[in-house]
Amino acid sequence: MASEAQSQTTKYDPNFTRSVVNSMGPKVPPRLRKVLDSLIQHLHDFARENEITVDEWMAAVELLNECGRMSDDKRNEGQLLCDVLGLESLVDEITYKMVTEANDLPTATAILGPFWRKDAPKRQMGDSIVMNKIEDGDHTFMYGQVTDYTTGEPIEGAELDVWHTAPNGLYEQQDPDQPDMNLRGRFTTGKDGKFWFYCLRPTSYPIPFDGPAGRMIQLMDRHPYRPAHIHFIIKAPGYKPLVTQIFDRRDKYVTNDSVFAVKDSLIVDFLPRNGDPKAEFELPYDFKLASFEQAKKSGVSGTTAPSASL
Amino acid sequence: MASEAQSQTTKYDPNFTRSVVNSMGPKVPPRLRKVLDSLIQHLHDFARENEITVDEWMAAVELLNECGRMSDDKRNEGQLLCDVLGLESLVDEITYKMVTEANDLPTATAILGPFWRKDAPKRQMGDSIVMNKIEDGDHTFMYGQVTDYTTGEPIEGAELDVWHTAPNGLYEQQDPDQPDMNLRGRFTTGKDGKFWFYCLRPTSYPIPFDGPAGRMIQLMDRHPYRPAHIHFIIKAPGYKPLVTQIFDRRDKYVTNDSVFAVKDSLIVDFLPRNGDPKAEFELPYDFKLASFEQAKKSGVSGTTAPSASL
Repeated sequence: MASEAQSQTTKYDPNFTRSVVNSMGPKVPPRLRKVLDSLIQHLHDFARENEITVDEWMAAVELLNECGRMSDDKRNEGQLLCDVLGLESLVDEITYKMVTEANDLPTATAILGPFWRKDAPKRQMGDSIVMNKIEDGDHTFMYGQVTDYTTGEPIEGAELDVWHTAPNGLYEQQDPDQPDMNLRGRFTTGKDGKFWFYCLRPTSYPIPFDGPAGRMIQLMDRHPYRPAHIHFIIKAPGYKPLVTQIFDRRDKYVTNDSVFAVKDSLIVDFLPRNGDPKAEFELPYDFKLASFEQAKKSGVSGTTAPSASL
Repeated sequence: MASEAQSQTTKYDPNFTRSVVNSMGPKVPPRLRKVLDSLIQHLHDFARENEITVDEWMAAVELLNECGRMSDDKRNEGQLLCDVLGLESLVDEITYKMVTEANDLPTATAILGPFWRKDAPKRQMGDSIVMNKIEDGDHTFMYGQVTDYTTGEPIEGAELDVWHTAPNGLYEQQDPDQPDMNLRGRFTTGKDGKFWFYCLRPTSYPIPFDGPAGRMIQLMDRHPYRPAHIHFIIKAPGYKPLVTQIFDRRDKYVTNDSVFAVKDSLIVDFLPRNGDPKAEFELPYDFKLASFEQAKKSGVSGTTAPSASL
């Protein structure tokens, strides 16, 4: 493989890639220069090693342009295309990697995904995020505690931003039959760091299949399903925001997620709940956050919350 | 550099990239499997070697989505972004590379660029493609012959599709003050393979600067100028279509084209023309085409004309 790539590569102008990299002027900041240098090298190596033709390249350009045309404030197709190629999960791993020396670990992260919306409604502990009457959903009481991962102390004022799909597999912004902001909510912990609310046991669903990401999934002869999961962003003053998902162990796609986001520590069990007319299941799960201080000390880099530009 | 990349790489899940590649099902055709395997490997290596963060990746996704949003039938921003990274010139080189054993070579190719339009007006030999009165343009009489690159015989029925910028540096579709299809035309050769028409001596110009490609040029601290050039697509029955550009030797950007398309054999001289009230310059240039037979024999792969999907 390497020798094949080598012999293909040497057919072409050996100075070309260097000339493109060297076209960069003196004012490019060091980090950007390093990233662009590497990007150009990888792009060109990819083209040479595979002898990409003009027609193949143009088909890829059209696929990328179509991602942009389909994207708006409710849908990010470019992101979804990266997701099916494993890229969001990989940069998530890179960004949040703790140095291996850390004795204990905060809750693992998982990708944000394209369905988060800002300004989800603020709710009281004990409320339900289910806004319409759903007869066929498995109502679930979720509860737990947000703690400092080093001290184990409860964290006051932690905001849980939670969202998941309806039983039909659709997020509310994909589904005109759901109320705006259905199955979304933000909850803020008190002194004890505890949280409790009602939601549904989520449903596995295919990623949107009508655009370039869906076409890529088809080209790769893969299924488009994500295992059932609940999304969270958890923020608290002085702590690194945590973006994660938890996955239903009983879901048949838990071992082959179409966007490669599952981690063992994020797999959970929905337990039968007795004596609560409002829920058939209960779901205990705790979140452990790293303070900015700890994160700095143990080598976590980058930010973890969606930025304002999203 | 290699060892640095290596040590960064080993921090991360060593099985992740393989698991994404292996998610491909059995029905993926071999060529597509090879290309996607390599694409995923390069994308992931790039992310690991540079420790790309979620925020950096999301900025790139937004840049790509914006390319799509800006693209329409008159503008292809995704293509332009590739151009400033040298990728279109590279796939052009790959696609049209002749095996080195070929004794003679047809005319070299150059990138199509984003400004070609289909159905340019058909014109008669001797016509001008200048549709409005341009006082400040350098009118030029271009002439030459289209021949078979092996036999040297003239090619009858060869269509030259030609386009270039106005003196203000704009193609007609970028400029509401130019008539539709200004400075574009299609000419068909007779038995002698000869062509002759009037055009302008073209002007160097910046690539469009108001989108993501322009932003990339700025990020790279580079100038956005292309050396003055005239575009051609030449098609004839039985011959491989030729997509190329010819460049004015006197242009100051001829050695540092912002999209890396210049080749030595495509650099031309505009000569003073005497006794013609319609032109101050003349430009002799011949085009040599490879037949499909010859192209196959000597190893040229791929097609060279813009496909219907453009």
